[in-house]
Amino acid sequence: RLSGQDAHRDHGEAAGVSRRSRNAHPLTDHAANERLARFERLVRGRFDAVVPTLKAIGTLAPTDDLAERAASMARAELGVALPAELFESAWITGLDMRRLYAVTMAETIHAVAAETHAFAGTESDTMTGFLLECGFHAVDISPCSDGRLKGVIRSILRLPDDAVRSRKAYAGAMFDVEANVRRWIETELLRFREGSPVPPSAGTRYLKIAVYHWSRSDPDYEGCAAHGSDQRAAAAAALSRLRELREAVENSFFCGASIDLLLIGVDTDTDAIRVHVPDALGDMDLDRYVDNLDLYRQTIDDDVTTARMRVHRAIEAASADHPGGPPHEGMRRLIATLLINNLSQIDYVRSTWGERYPDVGHAEAFISVGDGFEEFQVRNLAYFVFLQTVEEAATDLDVGIGLFQRRPERRGLPIPIAIHFRYDRRVPGSRERAIERCVRVRSAIRARYRDLCAAGLLACDMSIQERTFSSPIEVIEAP
Amino acid sequence: RLSGQDAHRDHGEAAGVSRRSRNAHPLTDHAANERLARFERLVRGRFDAVVPTLKAIGTLAPTDDLAERAASMARAELGVALPAELFESAWITGLDMRRLYAVTMAETIHAVAAETHAFAGTESDTMTGFLLECGFHAVDISPCSDGRLKGVIRSILRLPDDAVRSRKAYAGAMFDVEANVRRWIETELLRFREGSPVPPSAGTRYLKIAVYHWSRSDPDYEGCAAHGSDQRAAAAAALSRLRELREAVENSFFCGASIDLLLIGVDTDTDAIRVHVPDALGDMDLDRYVDNLDLYRQTIDDDVTTARMRVHRAIEAASADHPGGPPHEGMRRLIATLLINNLSQIDYVRSTWGERYPDVGHAEAFISVGDGFEEFQVRNLAYFVFLQTVEEAATDLDVGIGLFQRRPERRGLPIPIAIHFRYDRRVPGSRERAIERCVRVRSAIRARYRDLCAAGLLACDMSIQERTFSSPIEVIEAP
Ligand SMILES: [Zn+2]
Ligand SMILES: [Zn+2]
Ligand SMILES: [Zn+2]
Ligand SMILES: [Zn+2]
Repeated sequence: RLSGQDAHRDHGEAAGVSRRSRNAHPLTDHAANERLARFERLVRGRFDAVVPTLKAIGTLAPTDDLAERAASMARAELGVALPAELFESAWITGLDMRRLYAVTMAETIHAVAAETHAFAGTESDTMTGFLLECGFHAVDISPCSDGRLKGVIRSILRLPDDAVRSRKAYAGAMFDVEANVRRWIETELLRFREGSPVPPSAGTRYLKIAVYHWSRSDPDYEGCAAHGSDQRAAAAAALSRLRELREAVENSFFCGASIDLLLIGVDTDTDAIRVHVPDALGDMDLDRYVDNLDLYRQTIDDDVTTARMRVHRAIEAASADHPGGPPHEGMRRLIATLLINNLSQIDYVRSTWGERYPDVGHAEAFISVGDGFEEFQVRNLAYFVFLQTVEEAATDLDVGIGLFQRRPERRGLPIPIAIHFRYDRRVPGSRERAIERCVRVRSAIRARYRDLCAAGLLACDMSIQERTFSSPIEVIEAP
Repeated sequence: RLSGQDAHRDHGEAAGVSRRSRNAHPLTDHAANERLARFERLVRGRFDAVVPTLKAIGTLAPTDDLAERAASMARAELGVALPAELFESAWITGLDMRRLYAVTMAETIHAVAAETHAFAGTESDTMTGFLLECGFHAVDISPCSDGRLKGVIRSILRLPDDAVRSRKAYAGAMFDVEANVRRWIETELLRFREGSPVPPSAGTRYLKIAVYHWSRSDPDYEGCAAHGSDQRAAAAAALSRLRELREAVENSFFCGASIDLLLIGVDTDTDAIRVHVPDALGDMDLDRYVDNLDLYRQTIDDDVTTARMRVHRAIEAASADHPGGPPHEGMRRLIATLLINNLSQIDYVRSTWGERYPDVGHAEAFISVGDGFEEFQVRNLAYFVFLQTVEEAATDLDVGIGLFQRRPERRGLPIPIAIHFRYDRRVPGSRERAIERCVRVRSAIRARYRDLCAAGLLACDMSIQERTFSSPIEVIEAP
């Protein structure tokens, strides 16, 4: 296992944490972990550099060439271009650090989004094929909007982005049943009308996954804010929302229509998942699950074959004593794959940070509002509020603003809000309407948080993007 | 033609207008006109009685039995029960006429909605069958939200309510393309998955109709407010929105998916329609139409057979000189039916009111907000704003509020806003979410029109209703 240990050392060094001597898990995908580490360093590093660089710019003497010196410092350290007008009246009033911060954060968001397109999933065909083999023609995942779950698809579950039909996040994973039914209908029509990805005769299913979360080390304070940090309440709420969706689908289109469900929990300290294994009828139980951190510990000294076998046995054990019996084989294969994928992530977190993440609590850099950037799937990078209007999502937004205001290290800094909507170039007027929506949502945010805005403590940035995967970010400039 | 004239006389008398001696149109459906007259008298009469009755109540002496006397007057004249607490402190402060008006209007809305369920369409099976014969498995109509078009389905086009897939109104008929694509997708899935109403092999089409309007007698002031009373601009905007929808459908689901379009204009003085006849490719032209008031005049002295023949000839003439040729036969049959249906309405308006309606301009009794009441399809009864959030529909709502504020006879009266949403009992939580939406929209209205509310000049009423046709209105009481 020398090569594995080497890889860990390099990785630990580069991320700037102390080197740890330990064994890797036998099922860890080291190449994927290295790719992920590079991606996270690229993204996180850019945001982490903002405050130190601006502090350094703040110490520059207000000489005539201040704008040039600041701009070259920003270019070198942050890779962004700062407009000269930010420095024009610095000799009279001093630098407007709040504006400087807001502009820098917006520029960083745009720059990082553009640079990380290259990291977009490449294995999606293989995964889509595997999902079809498991009997699923579509997988739709709704995690909680908590920033610590921002990496749930790419890191925690290790799924390629475009193998997932939808990944809209909601506070407490309380996804919109009506919107989900509509998405299911669209998927059904593609199947019936176009035979895409497979015709109905293939007998495949639509899979809806909800992801709740808790904190192992500080369960009463660092769990899911939307459920008062009550792990069981969070799991129960997500489970009943899943059941509601299935009932809605079964009732709306009677002829045998149904969907498969899966409930997954994430320990945000370690990124270890807990998969609630469904029974043969597709129903789940709060107490019937496989805990992947236990599994990780039990298999750490195994060889590859034994470890794999134990994963499959754990799934069987979780449904063994249940009268309904185990779920269909495809579901068992999918769960095994998710657990094995997640073992790599547990290993990644342990090798990089040790027992748990240093940032157990909230440390988001900005609030992402609207349709969300697929480019920023990095833990604790953004608090995400999926919304079409502020009116409907006001509570979620209030929670996010509150989280930022309560962080002492952010005192005096404006809260960066990145408003982002996607459009469909096949639909006439869709791009114009996305722009209108950006401006409308910004007005509503400014109206709701009038005092924060007036004090310069809230800064909105607007952008749109075509719906096709990895299309460029288009920045919206409006007065 | 004695019977026809008799019917007209009765009708004119009952509606309280002067008797006119004239011939009826040979194609007029007198039974339908009488039914419609009864329905309109029932609805309109109830609302028209509110102000006179309240004025009379206002003149009652503030004796101990004021509450009883007022309540019995309200019961007798308006058919509603007024709560005694409205009169309790009348001996100290006088009657709170604004509150009394707001409560009476809300009660009247609930009572009339309940009573008019009986009038819901009974001929829908015949019409659905006819539409299928014409080659349409779904007909979706978007009129302007102007109150003068409130009767467009039931009166102007004489279509049974549930033969129409959707009839959501938007300011200027500027319907939501994305929402329409979703509705089209749902309809498609029913066709593909359930063979409902007919399987795809039947080769039928989805028909989208947009309805714009103008005022023949006062075109520059009483036309469509959303298009600056410019008839041609209103027609052009509706036509391009129709084309956008077709393009969106054609681009989203490639394998030959498309829809049929139809553009209809309404002269709100006479309810006469103008149908823009599509060519063989389904495209329309602003200048190629059949004007039904012309047709009415040309055929008034014909016998039934000749009149029918002239309607069909007018449709042929409208596409005769067009290189594309006439539309498919089903479309021609549908247009003929709509024109003939509308001849009854023209006759109804002329026999009741003469050359044109006495209320050429706005005379709405309340603003209907949300999903809209299917029960209130009476001209100029309600200004309708279809919305899910105030945030997205603020402009439409501002227009409506402005129209009420500018009417001198309403000075000092609160503007009644009836917030109404529908739910789907097949979807768990749908009813609770409809209630939440009522309360959320009311809060947003109160926030947007804070000053009006504070002055007691805006009164919100909330209700929900199951989506099934003619289900009961459920009033929402909330602080
Ligand atoms: Zn590693
Ligand atoms: Zn949460
Ligand atoms: Zn008549
Ligand atoms: Zn209009």
